Amino acid sequence: MSDQKLNIESRITLLGAGPGDPDLLTLKGVKALQTADVVLYDALTNEALLEHAPAEAIKVYVGKRSGEHSYPQDTINKLMIDYALNYGHVVRLKGGDPFVFGRGYEELDYAASYSIPVSVIPGISSSIGVPGLQQIPVTHRGMSESFWVITGTTTSGEVSADIYQAAKSKATVLVLMGLKKLPKIVEIFKAAGKHHLPTAVVQNGSAKDEKLVVGVVETIESLVQQENIKAPALLIFGEVVSLHPSFKKLIKQYASIA
Amino acid sequence: MSDQKLNIESRITLLGAGPGDPDLLTLKGVKALQTADVVLYDALTNEALLEHAPAEAIKVYVGKRSGEHSYPQDTINKLMIDYALNYGHVVRLKGGDPFVFGRGYEELDYAASYSIPVSVIPGISSSIGVPGLQQIPVTHRGMSESFWVITGTTTSGEVSADIYQAAKSKATVLVLMGLKKLPKIVEIFKAAGKHHLPTAVVQNGSAKDEKLVVGVVETIESLVQQENIKAPALLIFGEVVSLHPSFKKLIKQYASIA
Repeated sequence: MSDQKLNIESRITLLGAGPGDPDLLTLKGVKALQTADVVLYDALTNEALLEHAPAEAIKVYVGKRSGEHSYPQDTINKLMIDYALNYGHVVRLKGGDPFVFGRGYEELDYAASYSIPVSVIPGISSSIGVPGLQQIPVTHRGMSESFWVITGTTTSGEVSADIYQAAKSKATVLVLMGLKKLPKIVEIFKAAGKHHLPTAVVQNGSAKDEKLVVGVVETIESLVQQENIKAPALLIFGEVVSLHPSFKKLIKQYASIA
Repeated sequence: MSDQKLNIESRITLLGAGPGDPDLLTLKGVKALQTADVVLYDALTNEALLEHAPAEAIKVYVGKRSGEHSYPQDTINKLMIDYALNYGHVVRLKGGDPFVFGRGYEELDYAASYSIPVSVIPGISSSIGVPGLQQIPVTHRGMSESFWVITGTTTSGEVSADIYQAAKSKATVLVLMGLKKLPKIVEIFKAAGKHHLPTAVVQNGSAKDEKLVVGVVETIESLVQQENIKAPALLIFGEVVSLHPSFKKLIKQYASIA
């Protein structure tokens, strides 16, 4: 046993799995999984991704979801180190991109404190990929020169102060983990005079139970209720939402009312 | 010839190639290329990606780079339709993500006007992937609750008005195609009182000639000159840049001056 451990080369790969569709993993991600001794994976990870790892690799679910902290971050950090020291290559597989509200840097920093080398493989962030798959461009000439990605769930439990600024800006605003805070976020956009700003909510983008609702700031809450949209969901605020085909129907409805 | 054309199923895939490293293409992207009859690709595309396409597929370079409009967008749109009608499946391969300043929606819209079905496959945007590969997280608890991605090059040739707002915000600010405008952008951040905000510039992120400089707003221009940084480059403004190992050296330098 001890001889075997001497030959262990401990290393960690923080790997972004993308928004859900297992085909949205990168080739670099596949190669990392193929050389994994251990895979630690999140609730947001599609389990089909684990098939890229060798059959004999250890696969450990360390699921966390907004609101549910089943595994404290500290426990995940320690597991990661423990497995790396005892088994070699740990792939830490995270939904989306590891550094987009993924607490990836905390894991990287913790590993560095044990002098275990860490490499990072970016993943497709839902913030860009999910609107894209719905053919809603986050930027579009003459309509949006920027996009602003914000978490809906901060450490304090409050809505991020950045959302107040974003609501006043011309940026396309993308809010991750914000579904529970939708009433408050809608209020913030209304306070900025954006009652009629086109708005979409996408549940579980790129996965099989993907669902989309499209409206404007003042209608989006009732649409979310009607369609029974559940987390994880992405909120999209911006003129670019008007480019979605289902928005054209809304324009006709508005025209008939006016 | 005419018989053959009757069997053609015209369709277009807008495919994001990622930041440069060909291994940052998604599995879904590989599958799209494998069924391509024609590939139209950009200057920012690594040509190794073309090897996923069948040998007999037509590969056409329609290179565009910031500042160099060698192929007008209109010509690209027309080529795309022409190839789709005459050959079948056209993969429009674009650097990064098709909808992050990629003019992807213009191509989608043009194809729709010919009733040619378009699918979109997101790619890793340099705006997130390039900082990530440098182990600079775009978000980090207690440091950044959001990130704002902006183009440095607008249609009018002016710096985007959004940069003025972004310089005042707490968001991590990522500017694509902004290297030529760096003096103006630095001026905007200084006017917002951000002289000492950590700042990085990454040339050709994820590719072989990747180069990074790290400093603060008031030093970044001279660093870019010293290191002879060339486009394409990503500008990163935000406290998160201080997490990069090379920034710790800077802190020591500052401490010794003070």
